[in-house]
Amino acid sequence: MERIAVDAMGGDHAPHEIIAGAIRGARRAQVALLLVGPPEIIETELAKHAANGLDVTIVPAEEVIAMTEQPLAAVRHKKRASIVVATELVRDGIADAVVTMGHTGAATISALFILGTIEGIERPAACLHQYFGIGPRTCLIDGGANTEVRPEQLLQFGVMGSVFAERVLGIPRPTVGLLSNGEEDNKGNQVNRAAFPLFKASRLNFIGNIEGRDIPMGRANVVVSDGFVGNVVIKLTEGLTEWWLHAVETELSKALPESTMRKAVRPALARLRRRNDYAEYGAGLLLGVNGLCVIGHGRSKAKAVVNAIRLAKSLAQADVVGTIRDGWLAIANS
Amino acid sequence: MERIAVDAMGGDHAPHEIIAGAIRGARRAQVALLLVGPPEIIETELAKHAANGLDVTIVPAEEVIAMTEQPLAAVRHKKRASIVVATELVRDGIADAVVTMGHTGAATISALFILGTIEGIERPAACLHQYFGIGPRTCLIDGGANTEVRPEQLLQFGVMGSVFAERVLGIPRPTVGLLSNGEEDNKGNQVNRAAFPLFKASRLNFIGNIEGRDIPMGRANVVVSDGFVGNVVIKLTEGLTEWWLHAVETELSKALPESTMRKAVRPALARLRRRNDYAEYGAGLLLGVNGLCVIGHGRSKAKAVVNAIRLAKSLAQADVVGTIRDGWLAIANS
Repeated sequence: MERIAVDAMGGDHAPHEIIAGAIRGARRAQVALLLVGPPEIIETELAKHAANGLDVTIVPAEEVIAMTEQPLAAVRHKKRASIVVATELVRDGIADAVVTMGHTGAATISALFILGTIEGIERPAACLHQYFGIGPRTCLIDGGANTEVRPEQLLQFGVMGSVFAERVLGIPRPTVGLLSNGEEDNKGNQVNRAAFPLFKASRLNFIGNIEGRDIPMGRANVVVSDGFVGNVVIKLTEGLTEWWLHAVETELSKALPESTMRKAVRPALARLRRRNDYAEYGAGLLLGVNGLCVIGHGRSKAKAVVNAIRLAKSLAQADVVGTIRDGWLAIANS
Repeated sequence: MERIAVDAMGGDHAPHEIIAGAIRGARRAQVALLLVGPPEIIETELAKHAANGLDVTIVPAEEVIAMTEQPLAAVRHKKRASIVVATELVRDGIADAVVTMGHTGAATISALFILGTIEGIERPAACLHQYFGIGPRTCLIDGGANTEVRPEQLLQFGVMGSVFAERVLGIPRPTVGLLSNGEEDNKGNQVNRAAFPLFKASRLNFIGNIEGRDIPMGRANVVVSDGFVGNVVIKLTEGLTEWWLHAVETELSKALPESTMRKAVRPALARLRRRNDYAEYGAGLLLGVNGLCVIGHGRSKAKAVVNAIRLAKSLAQADVVGTIRDGWLAIANS
């Protein structure tokens, strides 16, 4: 049985929603749970749930890293922060994966310091797939771990994304696109333009620069960007999901009777909302480190935690870390 | 009567759609037209349209700048490029505005070299408003003119956007947000983090960092970003518009009879498409230069040119250039 460490204190709705989701997720996915945080807070929350029959361990961690903290300083100084302790459980082989809905930067830095990167990879990157209904055949890397990158790091993200798409998503020769401000070869900011020839010279199935519109169109299986742009992409997609659901309902309400809206339209929109809901799909995977780290949306509620735990279990079973390590070496040495 | 110079050779559908749109636009907006490009090509296209009663002048320009060219080199070497000659007409007071659907970078560099920037402003920036149905009370600056910026330039974009929102859109004390990867003060890449205190210390109605989701939510009247990120925002919005229109139709088709789809749903979706169509609203305004320059989407067809001409006329009537100059001085000297 996989053992999943959950950062009980990470996220806007921690600890209540996190622990509620962790209990439900552990029951559904049949995993053992390590809840990391201040024991008295976790015990109080646990008492609200029926955890009978579950393998739940409380792992004490007295400190919390807030969303407003600088991640580097926070991880360095708060040795007893929940995300730090949870990541150490993975390093020590006590947990198979860590799941957090907390500070993405803090989770990234913790993974970087505690787990270390796979040889040849400089920075971990957040890989998001099946995100917001965009489809099962596209992943975005980096979804927010690195606000500043070097051209070589973008190439490393592309390689990791390609290995992930091929070996985990099962896409042969996945197409890789560099997210830019135009599809012409000479488009891009300085870093992108310097990365372009590196991609071109690589063994990746590189299709060149792609534009924002190509992401939902599924033109590339792997969309490569820095984490700043990746974050804007994800958050804008979220906002436009809300915009469209509202606009479609408003517009159709003018044209259709209330009974049709109730019986057919609103249920159809609810299905579209579910396909695009970050509360369901809002978890990414940190690639490039020696351990499994699943990072969810800060606004996640219990349902997202349930799905993140299911994702963590399946990634552990697929030995994603070993797969990325082998795949990276195969491409780097070829 | 306003005189509008149209770059007849700019855009994916030039010259056919551009000239068709220019003729229709001139008739509707009641402006005089200066069509800039190779005379024989323009004359051939003009012959397809009824231009009787219109004030149309052909201004010869033998060269064209392609989308694949590096803008700086292209503008320097092609003295007779259509966008260069069209911009010179504005400088010389022969035209009140230039309209182009061509290379954004080439139009920006032409404006920078030929018109020059307003004193105190280092770089022109593309200001987009009422774009993709996001609402009449939000503008995005920079929508794609500058892929690389300095913190001071972001502040200048913010000031220009604020003056535009206040004096052209009529929004008192417009809210200004810095597009970032989180709403906390310490979020951002290096340039954003360095710009943050400049915004904080300015006289702008600065509401801090905003996220991608805040754009369609209308949290800020002025969204400030570099042109690389701004371009990704615009193109992703386009792609998601297509995604949503398709997804809603597919989902509702399963739940509603074909007659309802035909009579009510598809017309409603068509209305939403129009509100979000870059072919209708795909034009931005270059702010910060001593002249009016309206830049449309490269994929623009005739309808977008019609709207761009209408926009150019209203901006000329509102004396946007003088307004930005005065507004900038008022804020800079206060």
